[in-house]
Amino acid sequence: MLALDAMGGDKAPDMVIKGANLARVRHPNVKFKIFGDKNKIELLLKKFKRLSSVCTVYHSDEHVEDDIRPSQALRKRRNSGMSLAIEAVRNGDAHGVVSAGNTGALMALSKLTLRTLPGVSRPAMVSVFPTEKGECVMLDLGANIDCDSVALVQFAMMGEVFARNVLGIKRPTVGLLNIGSEELKGNEVIRQAAAMLRDSDIPIQFNGFVEGNDIPAGTVDVVVTDGFSGNIALKTAEGVAKLYVEYMRSAFRRGLMSRLGFLLARPALRVIKDRLDPRAYNGGTFLGLNGVAVKSHGGTDHKGFANALSVAIDMIEHDVNPKIIDELNKLKLDGVTAIAKAAV
Amino acid sequence: MLALDAMGGDKAPDMVIKGANLARVRHPNVKFKIFGDKNKIELLLKKFKRLSSVCTVYHSDEHVEDDIRPSQALRKRRNSGMSLAIEAVRNGDAHGVVSAGNTGALMALSKLTLRTLPGVSRPAMVSVFPTEKGECVMLDLGANIDCDSVALVQFAMMGEVFARNVLGIKRPTVGLLNIGSEELKGNEVIRQAAAMLRDSDIPIQFNGFVEGNDIPAGTVDVVVTDGFSGNIALKTAEGVAKLYVEYMRSAFRRGLMSRLGFLLARPALRVIKDRLDPRAYNGGTFLGLNGVAVKSHGGTDHKGFANALSVAIDMIEHDVNPKIIDELNKLKLDGVTAIAKAAV
Repeated sequence: MLALDAMGGDKAPDMVIKGANLARVRHPNVKFKIFGDKNKIELLLKKFKRLSSVCTVYHSDEHVEDDIRPSQALRKRRNSGMSLAIEAVRNGDAHGVVSAGNTGALMALSKLTLRTLPGVSRPAMVSVFPTEKGECVMLDLGANIDCDSVALVQFAMMGEVFARNVLGIKRPTVGLLNIGSEELKGNEVIRQAAAMLRDSDIPIQFNGFVEGNDIPAGTVDVVVTDGFSGNIALKTAEGVAKLYVEYMRSAFRRGLMSRLGFLLARPALRVIKDRLDPRAYNGGTFLGLNGVAVKSHGGTDHKGFANALSVAIDMIEHDVNPKIIDELNKLKLDGVTAIAKAAV
Repeated sequence: MLALDAMGGDKAPDMVIKGANLARVRHPNVKFKIFGDKNKIELLLKKFKRLSSVCTVYHSDEHVEDDIRPSQALRKRRNSGMSLAIEAVRNGDAHGVVSAGNTGALMALSKLTLRTLPGVSRPAMVSVFPTEKGECVMLDLGANIDCDSVALVQFAMMGEVFARNVLGIKRPTVGLLNIGSEELKGNEVIRQAAAMLRDSDIPIQFNGFVEGNDIPAGTVDVVVTDGFSGNIALKTAEGVAKLYVEYMRSAFRRGLMSRLGFLLARPALRVIKDRLDPRAYNGGTFLGLNGVAVKSHGGTDHKGFANALSVAIDMIEHDVNPKIIDELNKLKLDGVTAIAKAAV
């Protein structure tokens, strides 16, 4: 059972309903609780009979605006579809929540309602990315703009557990995103986090600093960064992939030979396009919460939203969150953080 | 006349000499003063007779290490090839300096030796990037890790002058890199810089916040950011371009049809590859200095280094720096900054 915020995202609620319908085909057992403007939602659902039969709609008048501050959302949007969807998870009425709405508000409301795991100061948003070697995970992707070094250390630990349980990597390598690999590069926060990860007893494979190009190169399995840099890297990568597709399109229009070449290579090219399609990687999971909460890109379409739903369903079906909670509990973040602090 | 730091960069001095030789072919009138280990340089020059005839070699024992702090470089590396090359510019013995060495040290030594323009607190590194619409400039790319809002406003002004004089754009649009386009996104420094650019009388076309994907999309002509985010964006973009080339390579090996298609489309594909080749965009120019100083990527090869030399030569041949100095002087940065501060 997934709880959906029907009103978040540029093309909502249309793409939410169409996305849910796509996900229903992929995951035949899934059911939805849909929160938002009941009239609009039910009008859309009329077009999808089968989807209708696995949906319950809950009305809400309130909407979390894209430009509302998280603190405002906490005070004034507690009856929004987004907020009610999160409450459904807390109450055990849904296994996870998915929203394409305001990231900061989703983070704040999830943190308040679902609570963080013991010792976790800030939940982080994580997602999976294609690399030259396969896939890597990166966090935080925009939930935390300013992070202290302890937060970065916790992100490293949560990301490592995620990579092991979701990507199935036995002993994931971890790197801190910086603007040079030398020890003295970067600001004080990053250098301190690196010292903690290097010198303390935290049981992860820390490989030091990595740079932006190391993300797609797959130099490490887990890239750790604050939400500002992480979001810049994520969006820049999406933009460059799009630029490449545009350049390809124009290149294949250059003369008859190129057009013919394109036709012959088309199936292979489609494989690349799918592999680098940002929609295929849509769905950022909040780590460090007592529940599954997934943020979809606000600008995505129904295909992208369906992928965010798949991310949530995978998390639930493979019991990933309980495993992460379990492992993080074993790590006793509080204690480790104290050790790490002492090591600096 | 260009002054070269022969010892900076992963493949130095080999790639510096080979790069100079490539540049000599492209720019037949160029001459070089080469600073570094005389024995190594002259051994390499033996292979390039014609290049030899336009080079003077100046010996230096000292080398600026990749991991030395800028403050250390200022105290202990004043007789390095890098430092002597910069001094040649100050003394009027060369029109510009190019180095692939330690960015922080190059920045610190250039700032000390060449001095900043009146009112400029921090020079910034700028470069040109390919976009869906043509080209854009971005600054800072890594010279300043922490920037206050006044520094960002100055970067915006310097970048605008650069875009007008180097890219020939009549009225360049300017955007501040952020993690959302809404006014309240980002940290205090960025929001304050945006307020200054929006509310003061600074004569530039400020379009507000842009995100990482807006860089390759070409949403604005000038992308303004601190050196940390700028470097992350730059390196991530390079990495994704490389990933795409790798994927293409493997896609075209999928079966006979793909191979044939590749052969037919090859000339068109080469055009894309050249267009996105990071080496073609190698060469970050320091803006805000009384002289031309260009930083090459440390990991580049001789082709990339030759492009950094071309950037410097273009700057010199088109009198770009005097024009920028002139325009910035007219803008009276001190005064504008005071107005901007008052506007917040």
